[in-house]
Amino acid sequence: MPASQRVAIVGVGLIGGSIGLALRERGLAAEVVGVGRRNASLEKAIAHGTVDRATTNLVEGVAEADWVVVATPVADIADHILSVAHASPRAVITDAGSTKASICRALRAHSAASNGSEGTTGLGSRFIGSHPIAGDHRTGPEHARADLFEGRTVVVTPEDDTPAGLVERAKAFWESLGATVELLSPEEHDRALAATSHLPHLVAAALAAATPEEWLRLAGAGWGDTTRIAAGDVRLWTQIFQQNRAGVVDALRRFEYQLAELAGALAEDDAVTLAAQLQEAKRIRDALGD
Amino acid sequence: MPASQRVAIVGVGLIGGSIGLALRERGLAAEVVGVGRRNASLEKAIAHGTVDRATTNLVEGVAEADWVVVATPVADIADHILSVAHASPRAVITDAGSTKASICRALRAHSAASNGSEGTTGLGSRFIGSHPIAGDHRTGPEHARADLFEGRTVVVTPEDDTPAGLVERAKAFWESLGATVELLSPEEHDRALAATSHLPHLVAAALAAATPEEWLRLAGAGWGDTTRIAAGDVRLWTQIFQQNRAGVVDALRRFEYQLAELAGALAEDDAVTLAAQLQEAKRIRDALGD
Repeated sequence: MPASQRVAIVGVGLIGGSIGLALRERGLAAEVVGVGRRNASLEKAIAHGTVDRATTNLVEGVAEADWVVVATPVADIADHILSVAHASPRAVITDAGSTKASICRALRAHSAASNGSEGTTGLGSRFIGSHPIAGDHRTGPEHARADLFEGRTVVVTPEDDTPAGLVERAKAFWESLGATVELLSPEEHDRALAATSHLPHLVAAALAAATPEEWLRLAGAGWGDTTRIAAGDVRLWTQIFQQNRAGVVDALRRFEYQLAELAGALAEDDAVTLAAQLQEAKRIRDALGD
Repeated sequence: MPASQRVAIVGVGLIGGSIGLALRERGLAAEVVGVGRRNASLEKAIAHGTVDRATTNLVEGVAEADWVVVATPVADIADHILSVAHASPRAVITDAGSTKASICRALRAHSAASNGSEGTTGLGSRFIGSHPIAGDHRTGPEHARADLFEGRTVVVTPEDDTPAGLVERAKAFWESLGATVELLSPEEHDRALAATSHLPHLVAAALAAATPEEWLRLAGAGWGDTTRIAAGDVRLWTQIFQQNRAGVVDALRRFEYQLAELAGALAEDDAVTLAAQLQEAKRIRDALGD
């Protein structure tokens, strides 16, 4: 990305704030403007050095931007992208949401309905979805880190009509922050992330909820690891599940099949089958490393 | 425990080795003898300072012991306890197995069958079960740590006829290594540990096995945490599941109920119920802390 570009970040939480901090520390933008709803968050964002200036006025914040990243909660992203497109007819836009297909569907539905209206026409030529697979259980701009994306994967999700130049631009943007980029369609992204992120959250929540509280004092590191993500933000995760229902239902079906296989071997006291299934699970887990 | 006592440890892996190391570093025993099956392990155990001397001969190793800890894989523990009882008619014995009820059942069945035979008669007056809730994914005596039990919980499992003095002795033993002791019956222990340890392992294994391998490259910290214990020792875990089938089946039923509730709210796109369930799971998870 040319360092002369102006970048606006809508939503300066952990992800948006870390993008701003990384851009500023690496000298990758002429100016980084933060857009947020609450002055308190914006003050924290400025105090932590994540943006050059900040505003609660989206129209003003993105007016002069060449490149806009929408890093708000997933249920709000499509609306914010449309607002940005209206406010800044030339800005190129990406997002940082954990689901992709429902956002793209909402934008396409809007484009079809408002064909010809100024601003959002041709949104497909200047919006491309992104999902940085990075985070921290501590949220908010005060925990932003310039190295949050270093060595991490960012999925960029071109659609059939996304121009190749836009794909390259999004790729270059995330690579400039130290990330590795994977290209997947929005639908592929959602199926994959259902398995690697959304289902684990659902399972961790069920496991925590299934634990009688009087036995929590006997919980060791295994219970702690397995349920850790169940402590995540409830509002955010409710949105993610709603936005990717089909993907999660599909992943859940695969999980229930595997659990039933294990439970069956256990019920029949079939040590050979049980060991073979545990070995296969271990093989897949070992492939990831620690 | 009087520092003049002789301690034998049958099975010098991570747990047995750490017990030996802690006893030696704290000057809590006149001598620590390690008993193992393989010379290679015993050599490592000695090199790492976990025992004063070591032998593959159980009879010889425990002959002069006042206190014996059996820290072998769970499926072998009952047999090893009986061998120790025969070889050393006066030693007081505990173990370090992850399940308790099946071991106690096996010992009782043996006592009933051999009533009057020398050595194992009155085993109930000199055996008491223990389960230190401590561990590490690195196994073997070379990873033994003198502080492995510090601040950790050890469940000690007296039966109806266990003499109070024996309970106190086991309690004092583990407390001398820095642990906090909880008393539960063997059956209570197994029900609790099914929920806090065995079920999480089964769920983590099903989750790992349900993940299509081509998407593993998109797995983040959440998948990594939730599946971590699926990398555990397959032989050991197969034994644990077999030894605590009833407890695991019971815990699994509670888990399946919670998962069905979440899946139902998801299927009906009922955000209010979904959020309430995630909130309840978060409340329980938050109670444990990081």
